[in-house]
Amino acid sequence: MHKILDTVDAQLETSLERLFAFLRIPSISAQPVHAPDCRRAAEWARDMLEGMGFTARLSETSGLPGVIATHHEAGPAAPHVLFYGHYDVQPADPLALWNSDPFDPQLIDGPRGKRIVARGAVDDKGQVVSFMEACRAHLTVNGKLPVRLTVLLEGEEENGSPSLAELLRKERDNLAADFVLVADTNMWDFETPAITTSLRGLAAVEVRLHGPSRDLHSGLFGGIALNPIAALVKILGELKDDAGHIQIPGFYDGVADVPEALAASWAGLGFNPEAFLGDVGLHSPAGEQGQSALAQLWARPTAEINGIYGGYQGEGSKTVIPAHATAKLTFRLVPGQNPQKVVENFERFVTERLPPDARAEFLHGGASPGFAVSPDAGFLRAAQAALAAEFGKPAALIGSGASIPVVEAFKTHLGLDTLLAGFGLDDDCIHSPNEKFELACFHRGTRAHARLLAAFAS
Amino acid sequence: MHKILDTVDAQLETSLERLFAFLRIPSISAQPVHAPDCRRAAEWARDMLEGMGFTARLSETSGLPGVIATHHEAGPAAPHVLFYGHYDVQPADPLALWNSDPFDPQLIDGPRGKRIVARGAVDDKGQVVSFMEACRAHLTVNGKLPVRLTVLLEGEEENGSPSLAELLRKERDNLAADFVLVADTNMWDFETPAITTSLRGLAAVEVRLHGPSRDLHSGLFGGIALNPIAALVKILGELKDDAGHIQIPGFYDGVADVPEALAASWAGLGFNPEAFLGDVGLHSPAGEQGQSALAQLWARPTAEINGIYGGYQGEGSKTVIPAHATAKLTFRLVPGQNPQKVVENFERFVTERLPPDARAEFLHGGASPGFAVSPDAGFLRAAQAALAAEFGKPAALIGSGASIPVVEAFKTHLGLDTLLAGFGLDDDCIHSPNEKFELACFHRGTRAHARLLAAFAS
Repeated sequence: MHKILDTVDAQLETSLERLFAFLRIPSISAQPVHAPDCRRAAEWARDMLEGMGFTARLSETSGLPGVIATHHEAGPAAPHVLFYGHYDVQPADPLALWNSDPFDPQLIDGPRGKRIVARGAVDDKGQVVSFMEACRAHLTVNGKLPVRLTVLLEGEEENGSPSLAELLRKERDNLAADFVLVADTNMWDFETPAITTSLRGLAAVEVRLHGPSRDLHSGLFGGIALNPIAALVKILGELKDDAGHIQIPGFYDGVADVPEALAASWAGLGFNPEAFLGDVGLHSPAGEQGQSALAQLWARPTAEINGIYGGYQGEGSKTVIPAHATAKLTFRLVPGQNPQKVVENFERFVTERLPPDARAEFLHGGASPGFAVSPDAGFLRAAQAALAAEFGKPAALIGSGASIPVVEAFKTHLGLDTLLAGFGLDDDCIHSPNEKFELACFHRGTRAHARLLAAFAS
Repeated sequence: MHKILDTVDAQLETSLERLFAFLRIPSISAQPVHAPDCRRAAEWARDMLEGMGFTARLSETSGLPGVIATHHEAGPAAPHVLFYGHYDVQPADPLALWNSDPFDPQLIDGPRGKRIVARGAVDDKGQVVSFMEACRAHLTVNGKLPVRLTVLLEGEEENGSPSLAELLRKERDNLAADFVLVADTNMWDFETPAITTSLRGLAAVEVRLHGPSRDLHSGLFGGIALNPIAALVKILGELKDDAGHIQIPGFYDGVADVPEALAASWAGLGFNPEAFLGDVGLHSPAGEQGQSALAQLWARPTAEINGIYGGYQGEGSKTVIPAHATAKLTFRLVPGQNPQKVVENFERFVTERLPPDARAEFLHGGASPGFAVSPDAGFLRAAQAALAAEFGKPAALIGSGASIPVVEAFKTHLGLDTLLAGFGLDDDCIHSPNEKFELACFHRGTRAHARLLAAFAS
């Protein structure tokens, strides 16, 4: 291993040269004018992988192509890893706020040493190259990788991944693996690596409450006519009790407590809810009483009203009893909850509370279950060991309150779990001007990836 | 009295000629191009009253002029009546739906005999002329009126009365009277006259609930961050209990039960709530349990949410926790309730229920108290007697769930109560194509006005 890590260190300068070449290609997937640049970035990555000994090709879609590369010399007994990254980047606007050309990467001084500044520096070209350079070190020293590796690079991640499902369906047989490794997330802080072990799922539903057949004058009808806004707020007002527990029957079916070891690990993170909420003008965790702030964010399901409307919304007042009122809800789900069941139970909750003359109509949005890596998964234990060895401290095992669409897609289309380990920092300004990647994060990330590859095989 | 009524009958044809001349003037106050026509209608009314022996003049405002005319020969001992009507009419659009020129009045056959068809036939030129012709009969027979009479005709009623307050303030001393008589309302049905003895007042308030300092991602913050929509619906959901009683402390302070005699009179009206609600797609009276449908409409205060909005309102779903949520409410008020107190109590109701991190902002709209004629008012008893004599059955004493702005203006600016008695029918198509006034209603209305004038003096 030392030899491999020494190689990583020794090749740092040339690794950076390769990263800079990649960063100079303005592969902005959201802007059609940059479609040729996107293709150029895909070809650059394909050529780079081919040069390292991979079998690499573009895989065409109805949008931008994917890059698929394999290096299976490790043989059928070795674990099979599917690495995922993306070669496209966010638009660079507003250009005026950049201190240098976003597509002319710079190595500048920062408070934590040198940093790489460019669009895509960390999201995701820097993280992709960091992984590739780890592979290069293995290949330089041993002529082969410790695992069977398939690389999948997407070209539309920053544009909502419109062709990803198509790509996964088409290449299903070529993407078989034991698990997916995604390098597109952050460390806990500059000293502490992180593995995201759970994501919340989502179920969306819209409820339209219908009352009178037309808008009514609230003087001539007020008191005797059903007001759909009043009916809607009365029903939705009962969604949670005073302790924040969601009152939909069956809502918590299958929801497990946070495992003790994980809860202890979270407690050790020193998360400060006051500081977290203070950034957005709040002070008190508003979720279920009796649950820690991190559990409220990562491990507990929610029932959120994302939008509501009905009646008059202009200046001043209008004496109307409207014919309709609408609310849009999403439920954040955790493993064990069935999205369809949650929506059904909500609909029953509403329907049972409808006053006479009210009629409810439901519109369904997306539905995806929560995701969690088993604490006993081999790839997780291997990753914990590798990261601890590189950083001298254990990785933070964290959750995310939101979904990550690619993780869902891998589960749905390939049946694979995902290991989320990346080396960005929260202050890297992704999607913003002056995006950067700390050189130390790039370097330690490469070393960590080298260790990860070895650890998966051991 | 018989002589006067005979005179009304005998002059019916010439009365109609005068009404038709008035109707030929397209005095549409909402359309500036018709401003000269409005002035012509005012002058026509002034000249007509002058011709009958009134002292009449126009009273200029910053908008269209009022007409003020007095006939005070009855002497200081006689009661003093202020008659209010308006000489302007609604626009006639859509013209294509009229069966005849809206400003070329026709006398055509209908299911109840002849009917007068024209814009303004009943609203309000027909009702105004009906009153004037009753005065004419008194003057023809006796050379004087039984009461001191001041006539006020407004020219902007169909345009929101923008100059009425100005006119009342300016002419305050010239409009002194014992009460106001307004002929701009309907009969209960073709056989039954009606007096509107109560109107509900109104208080408007908007509540804006503020939560986070900006819109938040419901995945990254959901569960821990206050959602202002959820807080707002929870609070407003508690406005009424399951029996429809409004839960704001002190809300019903000063609210009296419907007097027994009035309740009995309402019960006798044969009001059919199922039919009333069926017209607008509803079936069940939705107000306070234990109150009759008419009480819910006319005599009980309401708390109505006229509008609500917050968060995402577009297609599909958006995973947002918004920074704000807003509701617009109006309270319909009955006599005894203090509008300011109601709003204050509502604000306390909201404020006491605010969860941590929520802040409420209140915006105030108009506020006016409820209005009711005392059942013992002399002018009411006189009117009941006169209408019963003309129609052979007692007048329906009815309420209105809505305010009538001129009634409020007379109370505010002149300190006067109003007697609302008119001879239109619900199917007269006011504000619509083919507006009509049944000839029988015009005729009996004139006779009833002649009796009313006499009754006020007895």
